[in-house]
Amino acid sequence: MIVLFTDFGRDDPYVGQMHAVLAAEAPGIRVIDLLHAVPSFDIEAGACLLPAYASRFPLPSVFVCVVDPGVGGERRALALRAGEHWYVGPDNGLLAMAARRDPGAQWFEIAWRPAALTATFHGRDLFAPVAARLARDDTGALEAVPRPDSLVSVAATAAWPDDLERVIYVDHYGNAITGMRGTYLGASERLRCAAHLFAHANTYSEVAVGEGFWYENANGLVEIAANRGSAAELFGLRVGAPLTVVRG
Amino acid sequence: MIVLFTDFGRDDPYVGQMHAVLAAEAPGIRVIDLLHAVPSFDIEAGACLLPAYASRFPLPSVFVCVVDPGVGGERRALALRAGEHWYVGPDNGLLAMAARRDPGAQWFEIAWRPAALTATFHGRDLFAPVAARLARDDTGALEAVPRPDSLVSVAATAAWPDDLERVIYVDHYGNAITGMRGTYLGASERLRCAAHLFAHANTYSEVAVGEGFWYENANGLVEIAANRGSAAELFGLRVGAPLTVVRG
Amino acid sequence: MIVLFTDFGRDDPYVGQMHAVLAAEAPGIRVIDLLHAVPSFDIEAGACLLPAYASRFPLPSVFVCVVDPGVGGERRALALRAGEHWYVGPDNGLLAMAARRDPGAQWFEIAWRPAALTATFHGRDLFAPVAARLARDDTGALEAVPRPDSLVSVAATAAWPDDLERVIYVDHYGNAITGMRGTYLGASERLRCAAHLFAHANTYSEVAVGEGFWYENANGLVEIAANRGSAAELFGLRVGAPLTVVRG
Repeated sequence: MIVLFTDFGRDDPYVGQMHAVLAAEAPGIRVIDLLHAVPSFDIEAGACLLPAYASRFPLPSVFVCVVDPGVGGERRALALRAGEHWYVGPDNGLLAMAARRDPGAQWFEIAWRPAALTATFHGRDLFAPVAARLARDDTGALEAVPRPDSLVSVAATAAWPDDLERVIYVDHYGNAITGMRGTYLGASERLRCAAHLFAHANTYSEVAVGEGFWYENANGLVEIAANRGSAAELFGLRVGAPLTVVRG
Repeated sequence: MIVLFTDFGRDDPYVGQMHAVLAAEAPGIRVIDLLHAVPSFDIEAGACLLPAYASRFPLPSVFVCVVDPGVGGERRALALRAGEHWYVGPDNGLLAMAARRDPGAQWFEIAWRPAALTATFHGRDLFAPVAARLARDDTGALEAVPRPDSLVSVAATAAWPDDLERVIYVDHYGNAITGMRGTYLGASERLRCAAHLFAHANTYSEVAVGEGFWYENANGLVEIAANRGSAAELFGLRVGAPLTVVRG
Repeated sequence: MIVLFTDFGRDDPYVGQMHAVLAAEAPGIRVIDLLHAVPSFDIEAGACLLPAYASRFPLPSVFVCVVDPGVGGERRALALRAGEHWYVGPDNGLLAMAARRDPGAQWFEIAWRPAALTATFHGRDLFAPVAARLARDDTGALEAVPRPDSLVSVAATAAWPDDLERVIYVDHYGNAITGMRGTYLGASERLRCAAHLFAHANTYSEVAVGEGFWYENANGLVEIAANRGSAAELFGLRVGAPLTVVRG
């Protein structure tokens, strides 16, 4: 299957145009809209979200990953083979954590260019057609990257921690997803955010209505929520809000 | 076909994860996103919306119904056979009106559990796989409920009226859908909401621009709208707003 | 393929109901959600957007075009054959520019009516079934229009310019799409909007962060954007905002 992971938004025509290309070039292959609300100007957040979701998709899937403010400039176009999935997207760090979570990850540059390549919509013109080919097991568009440390995806992200102690996504319920994996915290530990302290619970109904808590969400990330309320509103949580782990 | 009816929102990754499970477990079966904006904390409203839409779907369809603040607690997981459709969802009242509209409705408990069941995303882990099985005519996951009046879906909802005299959904045009079926009102009757009185019309262009009216909408429910304007904004209509029928 | 172009919004149940009809009546044919945020009360804007997107879809596609405040009244229901695509929709001007861009365009009236036609949802009851038939190469629902100048789509829109000097859509990035095609402007020309003047650039990274510019977007329309910012917020651009071309 082909999976879309972008900042294109749901309301604009761009997602539909991606689907049209994929329908034409990979007929019969299912296309899933995973997320079109990746934070646009927070590549590190998007990079942390991607492997959390990808690890729960059937093997092999092809992820089209587009958060691409440098489109049309000199940034390179990449494909990544990691965890038996394929990822295609720009060389700006978005694929960095997906690569890091697989020691055998392999980087490729997209050498192919379409006859008509616009300056501003490589998602439609370049990444979608390449994803269609990969979904059909055609890797002819790719060339191995001989020196991966020449990539922004590797060099500029080397200092990123494996687990990010901040909020990386707030969903429409007001739940705040963090960049920490569940394995990073023990159930006896608490999270501090501004003036608020959150203890662990397994699910909503274990705490009082309106009370906040943290739990390992269904995708393996630490998340702060409230029972029958919006944690984001109740506690002022936003993308980027720093968190402190209170151990013991 | 499989039909999704949830409060998951369109913008978050949850709907895409449902689609991925259904694509893997019910390949070749069409999946329709009916509504992902069911009011989260108003189960009675969602319960009234469900049969209005379901009655217009091809028989048999499988509806995956998830508004589930009690997920991970002790609430039971149900399947319902009613009006030749299947419904799967939590035992919290969401399926109550769909059942009540068919005297031959049959309740089942979902006895099967997946190898990996998270505490907070039964939509993906439990209800979607069961829906996929039902769409393939496999009912092996189900056990009949010997005493339906032991269900929250039956007992706690027994006092709900057949037609709800309030607003249960406001769409993006600002049209206010009520919990009353069209058969509940005569064309000579009017609806009062706060200081406003709404008479019947058949369609928008029958009233002046900006004027409000009620009509039986295309799904059989009474709805308040305005010609070329937002009834919700013009008249202050919100989910939960009570209505009075002015007869004669 | 069948393509949806409406003002139904993404969050309400209407799009899903369209998909259900199309799945039942055109099984196996791909359905693409192009845009459900066509400006509701600005038919001219929608009419300019439609051919810009349609020209990039595989031939032949069937476009279901519904912005229809006159639904249930006396407005006619049309099909248009233009540029090798089919379009179905109301006779209110929405299809006018798609027709005008093909000198060989042919107008048809939809003569067929379904057994059950609601007064307010012709998208589901009339246009979707007709689109399904056209996608199956069945034109039995249509009758040629002997005098096209009897149509609102032709007569009332005759005064519309070929290129509209105003904003017709603002996307979620804050980019402002205009009704002018790229061929209408030279790269040395600038656009004025209120107190702001925008020069040409090819892509975002050619200008400083926060700076505004115009470019021909990936669908052939002139668009005003800012590098890593929302042009709509920075410069107060809204649908309807008039623009002046500053030549030389």
